[in-house]
Amino acid sequence: MKIMHIADLHIGRTINQHPLLADQSYMLDQLIKEVDHQQIELVIIAGDIYDRTLPSKEAVQLFESFIHQLNIERKLPVLAVSGNHDGASRLGYGKEWFRTHQFYLSTAIEDCFKPVTLKEIDFYLLPYIEPAEAKIYFNDDTIQTHKESYEKIVEEINAQKNSGRKSVIVSHLFIQGGQESDSERPLSMGAVEFVPQSVFKGFDYVALGHLHHPFAIQSDTIFYSGSLLKYSFSEASQPKGYRLVTIDEGVKSIFMPLKPLRDLQVIEGDYAAMIDNHQSIESEHYYQFILHNMRHIKDPMTRLKAVYPNLLELRYAEDSKADKEIKVEVDERSDIEIIEQFAMNMTDEPLTHNQQQIIARLLKEVQHETY
Amino acid sequence: MKIMHIADLHIGRTINQHPLLADQSYMLDQLIKEVDHQQIELVIIAGDIYDRTLPSKEAVQLFESFIHQLNIERKLPVLAVSGNHDGASRLGYGKEWFRTHQFYLSTAIEDCFKPVTLKEIDFYLLPYIEPAEAKIYFNDDTIQTHKESYEKIVEEINAQKNSGRKSVIVSHLFIQGGQESDSERPLSMGAVEFVPQSVFKGFDYVALGHLHHPFAIQSDTIFYSGSLLKYSFSEASQPKGYRLVTIDEGVKSIFMPLKPLRDLQVIEGDYAAMIDNHQSIESEHYYQFILHNMRHIKDPMTRLKAVYPNLLELRYAEDSKADKEIKVEVDERSDIEIIEQFAMNMTDEPLTHNQQQIIARLLKEVQHETY
Repeated sequence: MKIMHIADLHIGRTINQHPLLADQSYMLDQLIKEVDHQQIELVIIAGDIYDRTLPSKEAVQLFESFIHQLNIERKLPVLAVSGNHDGASRLGYGKEWFRTHQFYLSTAIEDCFKPVTLKEIDFYLLPYIEPAEAKIYFNDDTIQTHKESYEKIVEEINAQKNSGRKSVIVSHLFIQGGQESDSERPLSMGAVEFVPQSVFKGFDYVALGHLHHPFAIQSDTIFYSGSLLKYSFSEASQPKGYRLVTIDEGVKSIFMPLKPLRDLQVIEGDYAAMIDNHQSIESEHYYQFILHNMRHIKDPMTRLKAVYPNLLELRYAEDSKADKEIKVEVDERSDIEIIEQFAMNMTDEPLTHNQQQIIARLLKEVQHETY
Repeated sequence: MKIMHIADLHIGRTINQHPLLADQSYMLDQLIKEVDHQQIELVIIAGDIYDRTLPSKEAVQLFESFIHQLNIERKLPVLAVSGNHDGASRLGYGKEWFRTHQFYLSTAIEDCFKPVTLKEIDFYLLPYIEPAEAKIYFNDDTIQTHKESYEKIVEEINAQKNSGRKSVIVSHLFIQGGQESDSERPLSMGAVEFVPQSVFKGFDYVALGHLHHPFAIQSDTIFYSGSLLKYSFSEASQPKGYRLVTIDEGVKSIFMPLKPLRDLQVIEGDYAAMIDNHQSIESEHYYQFILHNMRHIKDPMTRLKAVYPNLLELRYAEDSKADKEIKVEVDERSDIEIIEQFAMNMTDEPLTHNQQQIIARLLKEVQHETY
C-alpha cells in the first residue's frame, strides 16, 4: 500500500502578518500532483490542519478543496487527526458524514480505539490530547502529563489490538528526543510534553505531526512528515514535502521534498550589496535579512522592499553580535569595561578620555547611592 | 409524502445578551419528537439556520446534533438553504459529502437549478441571494433588486422544469405582502426587498423562511413556517412551531404549534403588584415588563430579577405615554406650557409658583441671547 504522510499544514498561517495562503494553495496542488504521479492509495494528515482554532473562511475553503480533490474526485481514503492548533470540535463538524466516503477524521479520545482497517492494515487515529482531557476520559487523577495520557491510551489500544494485522498509529505529539523549531507552539504550559518512543512499541508505523522538521527524530518506525512550508526562519534550512510510505511485507518511509512557490531564506550580507546586486538572489522569495553597515540608512525596510517585495524581517547584523558578546563576557569584566565594550559595539568607536571620565564619575555616584 | 417545514432557527441567538441555546436545544428536541410522532419523511429548513455568519462552537454543535438525529440516525432526507443571517460559504462546508446521505444543502445560486427529486416530487433549493450575486452570476447589470434576481432565477428554473411532476421551491426571502416582526434584519440597505408572489406561479408548494410569523402571508401555495422561537418582543403573540406539509394528490400545509421551554411575554402592570403577586405568572418565562409606579424604586431591575430571573427588558410605563403626548402637542403650545407638561410627566406634580417664575426668567434670557 502506497501512503502519503503529511502534517502541519497550518492553513491560514501568516509570518509577520504576511499571509501565506497562496503559497499553501500552491503546495497543496503539488501534493495532488504527487498523489497522481506516485499512485498514492491513502493520504494521512497528522494534525494541525489549520493554524488557528477558528480558521478564516478562505482557510476552510482551501482545506475543503484539497480534501474534495482527494476524497470526492479521486475517491482516495483520507485519515486525519486534529492537532494542538486545530479547534477539535469545529474541525470535527460533519465527521459522521465524511466517514462513509472513507474520509476518517478523529478529533476526540473516543475516536481512537476502533481502528480503520484498509487492505488488512489497522490504522489508529489518535488526535492531539490534552492531559486534562485524558484525566476526565479515564476518570484518573494520576494523569498529569502527555506521557501518562498517551501511555494510558495506547495501553487501551494494545489490549484490543489484532496481532495478526500490521498496525499504524497516526498522531500529533512531541516525541522524546525530537528536534524542535521556532514555530511549534508549546503544547501546554508547565506540563512535561514529551512522549517516550517506547510507548509506540509494537506498531509498524507511527505517522506523526507537530515537529516541523521531517527528520526531527531518528527511528525505524516513528516518523514526522514535517510541515507543509517553512513556517519560521529557524526552519530556513529544513526541507519540506511529504513522506512516501510503503507498507507491504516490510515498511518503508522516504521523505520526498517539494519545491514551494516561494522559498524562505535567511541571508546575512551588506546593505549596499543587497541593494545593488539583487540579481544574484530570487527577488520573489521570503527573506529575513541580517545586514551590516545599515545604521546610517533611513527606513531601510522600505528601500529593500522595493527590490525584495517579500522581505519579511530585517535585522541589524551588529545588534545580534553585540548582544552575544555582552552576554558571554559580562561576568568577567568591570563595570567600566562593560560600558566601554557596549559603546564600542554601538558606535564602532572607543570612548574618548572625556567620556571615560564622565562615566567613571557617574558610576561612583550610582554606587554611592546603592551602598 | 409527509414533510416537516421549518425555518429561522437562528441557532446561537441572544435577546439582550441572554443566550437562548438551551431553549433552542429544547425546541429542536420537540421537533425530533414530532418527526417520530408524525412519521415525517422529509425535513425542509428554509434558511437562517444560524444567527450569525460565524456561529459559536456551541451553536455549530447543536445544529450538527439536530441534523445527526434526522439524517444519520433516522436516515431522513433533509433539504436546507442558507438565509441572510447564515455565512453561506462556511455553512456550505462539507455539502458534497452530505449529499450522498440525502442531506442536501444549497448555499449558492448554482446549487438551485438541478432539483432534488424525491418520491416523484422536484424540490428546488434556492438560498437567500443578494442582488449583487445574481448580477454577477447572470452577467446582467440590469439586476438591481431582489425581485429582479428571483425573477431571473425562477425563469431559468421554469425553462427546464419537468411539467409531469409536482414541484416545490424552498427559499429564504421577503414575499410581497408579508407581515414583518422586529427581529428580521433588513435584507439589504436601499434595495427593494419584496419578491412578488406571482414569481412562484406554477409551483405546488413554496416553503419559505425569513419572516418569523407562521401566518405572515395569505396564499394557497406560499407559506412561511415561522421561526423556531419568539426572537423579539414584537413576536410575543405569535405561535411558534413547524408546518406539517402533506403532498399527495393535493397539497396541504398545517401549522403545528409547539410549547417552548420558556415562553416570551410582554406584561404591562404595576411595580408593586408584580413584586407581590408573582405567583400569578410563571416566574421562569422570558419577560418584557412595562411597569407603572416604578419611578421611586432604586434599581428595580435587580429587585424584579430576584423574582423573575429571566426578565429581559424593563420599561417605565409612564415614559412611553409622556413621549407620545409631547410629540403630539408640542406644536400647539407655548414654551412655558411645554416645560410645565414635561415636568408634570416626569414628576407627576405641577410646577410650584416659584419654579414657574425661574423658568420664565430663564426662557427670557435664552430668547434674548438667540435674537
